[in-house]
Amino acid sequence: MPSDEHGAPPAGHGPAGERPPAPDAGLLSPVRAGTEAEAATSDLAYLTAMLDAEAALARAQARLGLVPAAAAEAITAAAVADRFDLPALARRARGSGNPVVPLVADLRELAGAAGEHVHRGATSQDIADTGAMLVAARARRVVLAHLDRALDALAGLAARYRDTPMPARTLGRQALPTTFGAKAAGWLMGCLEAREGLAAVALPAQLGGPAGTLDAFGDRALDLVEAYAEETGLAPPVLPWHTRRAPVARLAAALAVAAGALGKIATDVWLLAQSEVGEVAEAAGAGRGGSSSMPHKRNPALSALVRSAALQVPAQVQVILAAQAAPHERPAGEWHAEWQPLRECLRLTGGAAETAAELLEGLEVSTELMRADLDDLLDVLGDDPGTGAAAALVGRALDAYRRSRT
Amino acid sequence: MPSDEHGAPPAGHGPAGERPPAPDAGLLSPVRAGTEAEAATSDLAYLTAMLDAEAALARAQARLGLVPAAAAEAITAAAVADRFDLPALARRARGSGNPVVPLVADLRELAGAAGEHVHRGATSQDIADTGAMLVAARARRVVLAHLDRALDALAGLAARYRDTPMPARTLGRQALPTTFGAKAAGWLMGCLEAREGLAAVALPAQLGGPAGTLDAFGDRALDLVEAYAEETGLAPPVLPWHTRRAPVARLAAALAVAAGALGKIATDVWLLAQSEVGEVAEAAGAGRGGSSSMPHKRNPALSALVRSAALQVPAQVQVILAAQAAPHERPAGEWHAEWQPLRECLRLTGGAAETAAELLEGLEVSTELMRADLDDLLDVLGDDPGTGAAAALVGRALDAYRRSRT
Amino acid sequence: MPSDEHGAPPAGHGPAGERPPAPDAGLLSPVRAGTEAEAATSDLAYLTAMLDAEAALARAQARLGLVPAAAAEAITAAAVADRFDLPALARRARGSGNPVVPLVADLRELAGAAGEHVHRGATSQDIADTGAMLVAARARRVVLAHLDRALDALAGLAARYRDTPMPARTLGRQALPTTFGAKAAGWLMGCLEAREGLAAVALPAQLGGPAGTLDAFGDRALDLVEAYAEETGLAPPVLPWHTRRAPVARLAAALAVAAGALGKIATDVWLLAQSEVGEVAEAAGAGRGGSSSMPHKRNPALSALVRSAALQVPAQVQVILAAQAAPHERPAGEWHAEWQPLRECLRLTGGAAETAAELLEGLEVSTELMRADLDDLLDVLGDDPGTGAAAALVGRALDAYRRSRT
Amino acid sequence: MPSDEHGAPPAGHGPAGERPPAPDAGLLSPVRAGTEAEAATSDLAYLTAMLDAEAALARAQARLGLVPAAAAEAITAAAVADRFDLPALARRARGSGNPVVPLVADLRELAGAAGEHVHRGATSQDIADTGAMLVAARARRVVLAHLDRALDALAGLAARYRDTPMPARTLGRQALPTTFGAKAAGWLMGCLEAREGLAAVALPAQLGGPAGTLDAFGDRALDLVEAYAEETGLAPPVLPWHTRRAPVARLAAALAVAAGALGKIATDVWLLAQSEVGEVAEAAGAGRGGSSSMPHKRNPALSALVRSAALQVPAQVQVILAAQAAPHERPAGEWHAEWQPLRECLRLTGGAAETAAELLEGLEVSTELMRADLDDLLDVLGDDPGTGAAAALVGRALDAYRRSRT
Repeated sequence: MPSDEHGAPPAGHGPAGERPPAPDAGLLSPVRAGTEAEAATSDLAYLTAMLDAEAALARAQARLGLVPAAAAEAITAAAVADRFDLPALARRARGSGNPVVPLVADLRELAGAAGEHVHRGATSQDIADTGAMLVAARARRVVLAHLDRALDALAGLAARYRDTPMPARTLGRQALPTTFGAKAAGWLMGCLEAREGLAAVALPAQLGGPAGTLDAFGDRALDLVEAYAEETGLAPPVLPWHTRRAPVARLAAALAVAAGALGKIATDVWLLAQSEVGEVAEAAGAGRGGSSSMPHKRNPALSALVRSAALQVPAQVQVILAAQAAPHERPAGEWHAEWQPLRECLRLTGGAAETAAELLEGLEVSTELMRADLDDLLDVLGDDPGTGAAAALVGRALDAYRRSRT
Repeated sequence: MPSDEHGAPPAGHGPAGERPPAPDAGLLSPVRAGTEAEAATSDLAYLTAMLDAEAALARAQARLGLVPAAAAEAITAAAVADRFDLPALARRARGSGNPVVPLVADLRELAGAAGEHVHRGATSQDIADTGAMLVAARARRVVLAHLDRALDALAGLAARYRDTPMPARTLGRQALPTTFGAKAAGWLMGCLEAREGLAAVALPAQLGGPAGTLDAFGDRALDLVEAYAEETGLAPPVLPWHTRRAPVARLAAALAVAAGALGKIATDVWLLAQSEVGEVAEAAGAGRGGSSSMPHKRNPALSALVRSAALQVPAQVQVILAAQAAPHERPAGEWHAEWQPLRECLRLTGGAAETAAELLEGLEVSTELMRADLDDLLDVLGDDPGTGAAAALVGRALDAYRRSRT
Repeated sequence: MPSDEHGAPPAGHGPAGERPPAPDAGLLSPVRAGTEAEAATSDLAYLTAMLDAEAALARAQARLGLVPAAAAEAITAAAVADRFDLPALARRARGSGNPVVPLVADLRELAGAAGEHVHRGATSQDIADTGAMLVAARARRVVLAHLDRALDALAGLAARYRDTPMPARTLGRQALPTTFGAKAAGWLMGCLEAREGLAAVALPAQLGGPAGTLDAFGDRALDLVEAYAEETGLAPPVLPWHTRRAPVARLAAALAVAAGALGKIATDVWLLAQSEVGEVAEAAGAGRGGSSSMPHKRNPALSALVRSAALQVPAQVQVILAAQAAPHERPAGEWHAEWQPLRECLRLTGGAAETAAELLEGLEVSTELMRADLDDLLDVLGDDPGTGAAAALVGRALDAYRRSRT
Repeated sequence: MPSDEHGAPPAGHGPAGERPPAPDAGLLSPVRAGTEAEAATSDLAYLTAMLDAEAALARAQARLGLVPAAAAEAITAAAVADRFDLPALARRARGSGNPVVPLVADLRELAGAAGEHVHRGATSQDIADTGAMLVAARARRVVLAHLDRALDALAGLAARYRDTPMPARTLGRQALPTTFGAKAAGWLMGCLEAREGLAAVALPAQLGGPAGTLDAFGDRALDLVEAYAEETGLAPPVLPWHTRRAPVARLAAALAVAAGALGKIATDVWLLAQSEVGEVAEAAGAGRGGSSSMPHKRNPALSALVRSAALQVPAQVQVILAAQAAPHERPAGEWHAEWQPLRECLRLTGGAAETAAELLEGLEVSTELMRADLDDLLDVLGDDPGTGAAAALVGRALDAYRRSRT
């Protein structure tokens, strides 16, 4: 068997020359490939955030007079991601079980004389958890921004098609009339509630030291936690949460609710875009919806991508929820198992939000085919029961949307 | 193949005589067997709740003059669970895919002349979802009550052992000193936050009619929804949420956070109760912690049960989160897949809370062994770094606990 | 708070009189309510199987002269499920963490003078695991029998509609022609492979004693394991597998593959049965497919039930797979977390198989509507690319089916 | 908000200069960072495999005379990964929903005059699924090789410590004596069975064309499938399996069984390495087991990494199992949701195998502390029940190991 069959390519392969190939640039995850959420959750973003946490710690200690101000400045100046060899850090993380140990070693070296003040009184988890919350805070902004785009588009659809009748469908069968506006209003409320839930999740800084007792900081411990949280821009924690994982669990769950709200829309669009229904279509456009073998087809490709995220996020949440039952002051595995699933929750949901916003902004609606399908239903029903409170429900959803925008 | 190999026992087997045996009385789920949460989520509780929903609908319609008051009274009088054949309803549910269709048929018959006013303008999902929320509301009270017992016990432990030193352990290795009070304070905060998160989940009534448009109710639709919610005691919904499943998803996630907080405690107790550690023990007592083969053993059996729940609930949540991406106005499977996992979330978490309360109320703490283990650690460390802000952190947690109690 | 709000009904409620209501008779799980798989996995079936394990142990020991033959007979005679109070066993299981401890106590009492020979040298897990494998063996027969019904129906569909053209659909869009026979052949191969995979899973007896060393049996230990396996009818284990959980994991995975194969069929039927497609329909019939509010509808209710199982089983498998990483010779939670999910895998898959068999035996196929939809597609394509090797592929699948039947 | 808070670094950041930073080089997944499995499952490996599939298709068609031999050679020559812009492919995949559409476009261009023969009669899924199976085949070799290392180490431990007594522990409590050899024998059997199960999974090529009917190939269709499978080195499929996902499901399940067997070992090592137990330790060494804050500590870091994988893989399997219930001839989401989870199963399990091999090859065993702990147990027991059949069970496991090696 030739060696390349092992998938371990010889040096020189890959566009980056002698560097090892990127293990995961998104080829298998188009829902987030090249999206803002992907960038906001890249390894570089995590490295940046962990360095930000180290710098914030030094500055907070300087504010309390625990380290010299010049040292804090030097550490902040050294804590710049592109001075670090990221893939090497990843590999060296295997020795200690987490990337903070080699990161601290390198940062100490880069900080020169200030190196002795790096990571004072902290433990790896303080930096990794705070870094994760910083990434989450930055990625959440991206997710919320794209949810807002989706909300605007949805409000437009709900208003525009408030009175456009179409068949409601249950178990795949035409049931009674509804309106496309009512359907869009349901999508809108789903995204609105998901947005509010996600925005409300507290993202606290973590600082506890090796035992969670802040032992190195004497009677300045609680003041330091406040200062550290301020320097990071994160919420101050009531207690260290190194093995009280609700902050991670709640964030993950809120992301899954958002992914689900987006997945609901994508599911409906896919079904309404079926050849035999045709009531909506994704926008045509360069490189959108094409098939490698069937030029006549226009696929709901964006819907498929959003759905692919909605089907993956819940399993990542499962890992995070189960990891709450973690031993003692730091577990041997449960904590480590959280990291990648949390990143997946962030980037899949963020990618889904960006994708859904594009989908909704370009959604094509055929009121004619909605009418035709409805007529088929009315033929079966014999008389027209009308669309009931559909318009009023649209009004309610739009009111909620407008209130959220003020 | 002899018939007994089918596990389908002949008539006459089982303590209930000629009736078919209960498929699941909790033999495989001791964490909730015989608990209050089990009773609050039994099939009988669901049947009761669905009948309560039907009765509330009739009464709400009577309040608006849509049905005669006497009919609403008759329907309420007929909507009593023990007049229904529950196992037969379960089997008849296979025909329609849900239990409401046969339930409505039977209720109409039992209501006599008022039967024509049963289920007016509603769809199966209105009753099933409202019923599920009623069960959730009732079971939540049970969960919260047992969480409160756990919180009281935890506050006692945190206060009593505020200054009791012991080793903190990371990756299973003794790290630095902490106090048992600090550990208990972490447990306390975990349960407290979980309790608050669970109590805050909105549990709305569901009413939309077959298409979600409330088509049968004309311009009284929104008033009826208000009245219906009042009659059920549930929160009024902004819109029908038949395929906007955040209410279920959020409830499930909040339960998983609670199960995780309890699982964290149980994990620590299990590990502290190891033969080689022995710093805590579950209370001895009749039928507690025994082994079928080793009379010398005293097992942390309650911890094992709580952990068994914490390991199962996240997977049930996964099903519910994934089911959000559901087709149209009622899906062919996603909705049906939610029911049992939601029940499992409720009864496993409720069972875990009741079990954890018992565990914590009886927890035996050996300050001597904590001291001995700490001395081993101090020997390794060479000097005693102290317990830092441990006592102050206990104070913070107790303050939060006291605030929550007022 | 009024007592009925607890969901804990006062005495006298429920069809079973003063007995506590069944927590779970299937009301929330119609896919298995009243099915053979439900009966084969009931608590009574588990109790029966655990008693069978105890009796087999006594008889195996008698064969080796380790206990008197008369004692083994007396134990076998006493080990009859209806002499035990099942709900009480479930509750007493909370004390020890598993139901075997109280079961052994009761069996010893029932066995009178032979009581001292009950459970000799065994540990709870030996009986619980062997019991679970006995239940699995019995329930598997049920699953396989219904899969066989489904296979027969599928072979009939594949043969009958071998040359019936219809549109293939990708991402919901009509793509190119295929045949309904080719679609049925894919379903057939899926079920056939799932059946073979499930039938091939080894179901071993478990016997290890408290430490997994068979310490009580001296140099007869390995002989006893053989005899015990023979008495139970299960496969002999290479080693005790008390914390080597591949037998459970493989069984669960094979069930999930079967549930997935059935779920694939149900998904296609649901989509083909849409109002706008109508190429297939579930059989009409008493109590099948009805709606509580729309008499004109004929729902693919069986498909929805099968899909509800296919969406739940994978999460149950997750619990079982994760529980493999279990501490020492018996974990404090991971093992206990397996029990209910394994039962759910068995009864949901078994219920899905029985439901799918009914669905397929009654499936109505409209070759006219397939033709009409195909004509729409051909209009788009401009010319007819034909159905390629569809018929040959049907032939391959039918060959595989026939080989499996001999 | 400063731009760096978006986590989207300005150009010039990162070691790769103007190229976008790698989203995921393993910083959050040290269990696989820099491992052979990571390389074997990188985006580059997937790209290579998909190109291999295209080249194999061309060669197979040339063997049947369907395309000119020179064209097949030219396509094979062009199908070299480093001629493609991988991150750009990932982003362009968003348009079509999968990376094959842009890949085919680029390959056609690179193949020059032979371009018209690229991808003839195939559909995207043929290439993506075959590519995934090629990656799986190559990564499986890596996993199996490291499992073999682990097996060799385990056999050594089982043989060496066959008669070394130690306490067995159930629910964390010392139960009865066992031997470390018996424990290692259990680990050995777990890995051996997992290895056999994984090696036995069939990895078939996929070729069906757009509708799964091989419509473009006339009466050469089945011959072409054979030739294509031969050219890829994969197993020939009975039928196209584009929506019959058992090949993926079985592979994922087998990987999870392996991850579980490794996780079982890591869990025991973590617990045996606790400060209060100390019966085993991971090897000390440069960059192994260090703490960022506590120089006295030697952490079971490799165990933590292996456990982190064992806790994640089951959730990835869940996604894959649930994706089996996929619509029609290609789903809008379920298929796309499989890709990343399958990769995670491969690389997490492969990373865990490599990590566990290192762990086991360096495992330090303290027979003295085992003896001391056992003496504590024997004091409790009063007399020594011995280690029963422990040595015989070790012999059985070693026999099975030796048979597997021949």
